[in-house]
Amino acid sequence: MTDLQRLGQQAKEAASQLGLLDTKQKNQFLEQMAVAIENNSEEILQANQMDLNQADENGIEEVMKDRLRLTEARIKEMADGIRHVAQLDDPIGTIEHMWKNENGLTIGQKTVPIGVVGIIYESRPNVTTDAASLCFKSGNAVILRGGKESFYSNQLLVSILQDTLEKNQFSSQAIQFIDDTTHETADELMQLTDFLDVLIPRGGADLIKHVKKNAKVPVIETGTGNNHIYIDKDGQLNMATDILTNAKVQRPSVCNACETLLIHKEVAAFFLPAIEEKLIDLGVELRADEWASEYLPSATLATEEDWSTEFLDYTLAIKVVDSIDDAIAHINHYNTKHSEAIITDNYFAAQKFLNEVDAAAVYVNASTRFTDGFVFGFGAEIGISTQKLHARGPMGLKALTSTKYIIYGDGQIRE
Amino acid sequence: MTDLQRLGQQAKEAASQLGLLDTKQKNQFLEQMAVAIENNSEEILQANQMDLNQADENGIEEVMKDRLRLTEARIKEMADGIRHVAQLDDPIGTIEHMWKNENGLTIGQKTVPIGVVGIIYESRPNVTTDAASLCFKSGNAVILRGGKESFYSNQLLVSILQDTLEKNQFSSQAIQFIDDTTHETADELMQLTDFLDVLIPRGGADLIKHVKKNAKVPVIETGTGNNHIYIDKDGQLNMATDILTNAKVQRPSVCNACETLLIHKEVAAFFLPAIEEKLIDLGVELRADEWASEYLPSATLATEEDWSTEFLDYTLAIKVVDSIDDAIAHINHYNTKHSEAIITDNYFAAQKFLNEVDAAAVYVNASTRFTDGFVFGFGAEIGISTQKLHARGPMGLKALTSTKYIIYGDGQIRE
Repeated sequence: MTDLQRLGQQAKEAASQLGLLDTKQKNQFLEQMAVAIENNSEEILQANQMDLNQADENGIEEVMKDRLRLTEARIKEMADGIRHVAQLDDPIGTIEHMWKNENGLTIGQKTVPIGVVGIIYESRPNVTTDAASLCFKSGNAVILRGGKESFYSNQLLVSILQDTLEKNQFSSQAIQFIDDTTHETADELMQLTDFLDVLIPRGGADLIKHVKKNAKVPVIETGTGNNHIYIDKDGQLNMATDILTNAKVQRPSVCNACETLLIHKEVAAFFLPAIEEKLIDLGVELRADEWASEYLPSATLATEEDWSTEFLDYTLAIKVVDSIDDAIAHINHYNTKHSEAIITDNYFAAQKFLNEVDAAAVYVNASTRFTDGFVFGFGAEIGISTQKLHARGPMGLKALTSTKYIIYGDGQIRE
Repeated sequence: MTDLQRLGQQAKEAASQLGLLDTKQKNQFLEQMAVAIENNSEEILQANQMDLNQADENGIEEVMKDRLRLTEARIKEMADGIRHVAQLDDPIGTIEHMWKNENGLTIGQKTVPIGVVGIIYESRPNVTTDAASLCFKSGNAVILRGGKESFYSNQLLVSILQDTLEKNQFSSQAIQFIDDTTHETADELMQLTDFLDVLIPRGGADLIKHVKKNAKVPVIETGTGNNHIYIDKDGQLNMATDILTNAKVQRPSVCNACETLLIHKEVAAFFLPAIEEKLIDLGVELRADEWASEYLPSATLATEEDWSTEFLDYTLAIKVVDSIDDAIAHINHYNTKHSEAIITDNYFAAQKFLNEVDAAAVYVNASTRFTDGFVFGFGAEIGISTQKLHARGPMGLKALTSTKYIIYGDGQIRE
């Protein structure tokens, strides 16, 4: 048995205990974890400094270092994040309805934990406490495999959470940490079919792609968003400009940002110059198809690759389309099934777009930036699923549950 | 592009049209498919005879040939099965609730088709029309890959369904048939990630295992049931005997049959001889652990392998346990997470068993044989999922759906 298999087996054993904890106990443990994070803030800052020193040595750029950096305030936010999870409704043990079948059996479908959840993630140390607390609240053991950049921070954070469990005579193996950040171990985790019930990768497109390609365990694909805004011929210029600029620049590095603008030919000549002015002011580089280029003096010509690129930057691809059908066809061909929006005053265009665009979240007259578990009102987010099975779109605690049928009989046999 | 890729691409294109059909149209097509099956019964019987001749040549045993054989009555059943699917509620387009979030966005989660569903199955030709009609009703294109034993029957059945679509000027590529029954093609289907949204294997343990091992596309694992009945110390002998014999012999070859009896030590000496008498009468071979063997003169000694074997036959493994905890531990170690039952008069034992046993369906005082989409009241069954993601237990039409969030705004941008 390899180290990772042993760790998986321990997680599996802890999961069966964790699944039986009642809500009050889980919440008490979470509250104590939050306190422990706060009480150990000095040690956490020291560990984080080791990560930052390593980042310096490796010449990591400032924007990455900022994602990595912890402060007193950020540590407080992590603790408050755990407290917030404690306050959420327990997703386990819910039976939405029970019914009596024709044999007189009373049948109910009850939510249960999935079991052992693996999370592979990059850089930000707050994912460690986020993911651990969400898995704990939903009764799942978790195996965390963070990036090497935040190794010391992650390792210390997990040991603080584990200590809290141990002090409560509960198995610390419910929260597992892989202290080997080699690719070999990550790949082994992806194939740990005997012990891992699901693997959720959180990170860039390359990570997701690698996991999807190599995993033997079930995966919930999250993340990449090549999102479009389509300005219909009946769209309002001001609303279109506000929503487009918000979706492009409010936070360009995130998965629900907009990457391509599609615009109906009837409004392109009038709208595009006004939009260009605004985008240039905001520092956005434009890559336009030939038709759009006629109205956009500052744009360079878009390549085929641009239509499928998630820029995650101050870059926008722009294309003029003949019709809403062309817009929808372009979107369904190039998108990553994340978030798509139409700007229109026309009822039928709005309904058509909602019906025919294939994505986790489809908007009428609103920014794609709203695709988020907190904004949707789920109180938490473990990621945004871009796949169609199990969960699609922002995933709250419920996405971390499975179900089982419980059946009450009084001696029934099948005829 | 290989033949299979082309077929996948066609299915994907057809799926986007199929997803937009309204319920009435889908039901009319299904009704016409049923009529076409009936009208072509003679041709179907001829094609089936070719399969039966081939089975004779290959020395296939009678029990398998019976599964393969079609009759006028069975063809009528297939047609009625399609009509029944037409009568079921359309699972697509349902929005269970919509809410307004704090930004004033109106958000709803709507059921949508998954897209392209692959089904790999063995022998029975009725799976062809079952699976095709369920996928069609749920707006999914389907790629069918039946076993070579029923090749001629399957091929003709699909062509009849396709003709019906063509006569209605609808893409016949919504129902695709792989007319190459080599293992290579099956393996290629398992890796058709660009076109296949999910693959559902329907067949024996070897098929499921092979798919699970080799698939790159998302899989819904179905089927294998190493199921237990646990007779608690507070169980009634008559009820226990009735339920056990029902679960073992009413149809031993199916996945919800019982394979192992666990019995509490306090009732073993009294219950086992009575149970043995009944089981011997029914032709059941007993394989008992040492302790149980003391009360079961006819039993042979069970091997370690017996505890994890799905016999699918008139064979039962029997073990005496010290406590309900031991029974639950044995079950959670050896079961395939399908169907498990306790026989008891004790309230706390019943609740404990329901809470702690990890399976898709957990019964108190009823036969495991009830795990079935029709019996549960779903009106249909595409298989019984033994995995934890997406769907668990009997799967009706709803298991063939995904969701998308639709969001109505009036100009919202994210602050």
